[in-house]
Amino acid sequence: MKLFDRPGFPNPARIRIVLTEKGLDSEIEFVPVDLIAAEHKQRAFLEKNPVGVLPVLQLDDGTYVTECTAITEYLDNLDGDPRLTGRTPREKAMIHMMQRRAEAEVLDAVGHYFHYATPSLSAELRAFKSLDWEGREIWGRRERDRALAGMTTFDEVLQHRFFLAGDTFSMADITLFAGLMFADAAGLSATPELTALSSWRTRVSNLPSVKNRSGQAFEPEDLQRLGF
Amino acid sequence: MKLFDRPGFPNPARIRIVLTEKGLDSEIEFVPVDLIAAEHKQRAFLEKNPVGVLPVLQLDDGTYVTECTAITEYLDNLDGDPRLTGRTPREKAMIHMMQRRAEAEVLDAVGHYFHYATPSLSAELRAFKSLDWEGREIWGRRERDRALAGMTTFDEVLQHRFFLAGDTFSMADITLFAGLMFADAAGLSATPELTALSSWRTRVSNLPSVKNRSGQAFEPEDLQRLGF
Repeated sequence: MKLFDRPGFPNPARIRIVLTEKGLDSEIEFVPVDLIAAEHKQRAFLEKNPVGVLPVLQLDDGTYVTECTAITEYLDNLDGDPRLTGRTPREKAMIHMMQRRAEAEVLDAVGHYFHYATPSLSAELRAFKSLDWEGREIWGRRERDRALAGMTTFDEVLQHRFFLAGDTFSMADITLFAGLMFADAAGLSATPELTALSSWRTRVSNLPSVKNRSGQAFEPEDLQRLGF
Repeated sequence: MKLFDRPGFPNPARIRIVLTEKGLDSEIEFVPVDLIAAEHKQRAFLEKNPVGVLPVLQLDDGTYVTECTAITEYLDNLDGDPRLTGRTPREKAMIHMMQRRAEAEVLDAVGHYFHYATPSLSAELRAFKSLDWEGREIWGRRERDRALAGMTTFDEVLQHRFFLAGDTFSMADITLFAGLMFADAAGLSATPELTALSSWRTRVSNLPSVKNRSGQAFEPEDLQRLGF
């Protein structure tokens, strides 16, 4: 299988964690996509994923699978033991519910804020992302507030649970973890008062699959081009 | 089990189709929520679903399950034969991929257009939805264009496939079907030139689970309050 992605970015990190969690790193050929130069918005990439986002998994028969939830379902079910997406109807329900909430309320909200309301992109990519209109700051502020409210909601959930969907680490935790990674990059870090969220994040960070995943850091050239 | 929803609306329709498809209608107590009076934005409902959207499934032990994908995973897996969400890793991948695309590119885009750029809501609900800012029309236009582009993309997909994720009806088709229902209500109908999309829609409309689902029509009082 091939994975088209870029190390260090939030959505690629979701699948890198899944791969390490499932012991599948060695089964994958990683193909880097030049995200900063907007390679994923060009025709060759759009033929793989018309939505124009990373990552994309290519199966051995050539089929492209996009959307992190779909890629995770595929990889997690290959060994017949889908512990990241749930084994029972109830586990599947709780994981998909919390995953979707983490995606909508934190990861996507941070993404909207970052893409539409901050100057934190390369010039090549900005053309595909930023909105050139007066309401931009208001929309960005709304999405920032939504992301911060989402973090507070998850802090409340995590006061009663060890992981987002119950007692074990799942796809829902991976999505929220990527959302907080993205929030840090966008300058929207969760406040220290959210202690349950903070403890959960430390717990997730120390999991072997998260700590030792391949492609954890940004490429040095990416950092340079992003102005770090 | 209890289902908190409102007949005739797009997201409730997704679960009503699943229930009929899986033969589960008689297992459910339907609890109507007064969507038009914004009951789902009030405290009592937000305790069930902090995101404040319909539908919500309550399991027999009291647990609330929100998000249509999560509710569908639950109901579809109860009988051990998850044909709407996929049996094999590959089926799961294709269904979740196309479901998420249909949700993001059509259903949610139409929803944004409807909620933020049209006056088609009750006064009670408008307070929770519309944005009071100058960029509203531009954001609404962007989302309208995204929804129309999404319909064109799915028309291309359906030129080569009988259903969205392959040869059989799945959760992905249900999401797109609900998206087109919502588009009709928002005055964003797909153009007749999209013949593959149109044929697919007729095919889906004629499925017994879609044609004979419970709660297919709006409540007469809703239509009246919506000004029809």
